Amino acid sequence: MLEERRRHISESIRQVPDFPKKGILFHDVTTLLLDPKAFQYSIDDLAERYKGKGIDAIAGFEARGFIWGAPLALALHCGFVPLRKPGKLPGETIRASYSLEYGEDVIEMHVGAVQAGQRVLLVDDLIATGGTMGAGIKLMQKVGAEVVECAVVIEMPDLGGRKKLGDVPLYAQVQKDGE
Amino acid sequence: MLEERRRHISESIRQVPDFPKKGILFHDVTTLLLDPKAFQYSIDDLAERYKGKGIDAIAGFEARGFIWGAPLALALHCGFVPLRKPGKLPGETIRASYSLEYGEDVIEMHVGAVQAGQRVLLVDDLIATGGTMGAGIKLMQKVGAEVVECAVVIEMPDLGGRKKLGDVPLYAQVQKDGE
Repeated sequence: MLEERRRHISESIRQVPDFPKKGILFHDVTTLLLDPKAFQYSIDDLAERYKGKGIDAIAGFEARGFIWGAPLALALHCGFVPLRKPGKLPGETIRASYSLEYGEDVIEMHVGAVQAGQRVLLVDDLIATGGTMGAGIKLMQKVGAEVVECAVVIEMPDLGGRKKLGDVPLYAQVQKDGE
Repeated sequence: MLEERRRHISESIRQVPDFPKKGILFHDVTTLLLDPKAFQYSIDDLAERYKGKGIDAIAGFEARGFIWGAPLALALHCGFVPLRKPGKLPGETIRASYSLEYGEDVIEMHVGAVQAGQRVLLVDDLIATGGTMGAGIKLMQKVGAEVVECAVVIEMPDLGGRKKLGDVPLYAQVQKDGE
């Protein structure tokens, strides 16, 4: 991506201290979404990166991952697969769990949404500790699909999320600190 | 919209009986999202309808409203405003509540996301009883914005959601039964 566009995207992201709890610096993409140029740069960059790469489906994580995943699926003329919190999908689902600081959480995908052998791109707004993204990879492995790459707007490298992805590469448009 | 495209959209929506509970017929848009042509038709139809109408912002409801709202905001070169469940938005918020069968629910919007006098389009995948959409209208009225129209893929006319929208018009791409 052109450095000027990357800077525009980065500067459109607001930092909110002490959210969701004291000591955490939250990177708020809602200000990016109010800037049509920044949002378009972000989607265009992803579309250019993955065009012609034989992507069969984009899987996006509830809820902010939907905001990037849906336009990218349209740009690549492929299907969009929502990865959701438990109980939200009406059909038969498969699930993968991931650890939180206390306890664990689960994401679900519809059975049949992704086929064995398909090339899938996982999309979210942000990767922090990588739990959600790692669970997305597990889900795709369960159905025999190939995760080509994980794509995010923001990586927080000091939280080490990349290490949760095994052999799957990560692409991040910008990098930010967590504290 | 061309009847052929409307039919294509309609036929791509799967019906799941007894979800979220017995006796409810759920209209599942995840099968529409797996059909790139159906999803593109749906977004194109909305973009054509609202192009040149002076829309300043698209507000989409968590979570499926994000899937339609975000591509539409890109197509219209305007901002995208997520309307979220309580506690999800990191900045200062304003809220509106709406009644459920038992109890009530709340949606939130960031203060400053929409300005007084702006022309806003509310977008969701589906309108059933109209509670969420009505709360979205209340939110916009609180900040002095004008809701130009409410746009959905699916209306369930037998549930009477239109009546919850006051003077604000509703545009639905397809209509479906609830039982």
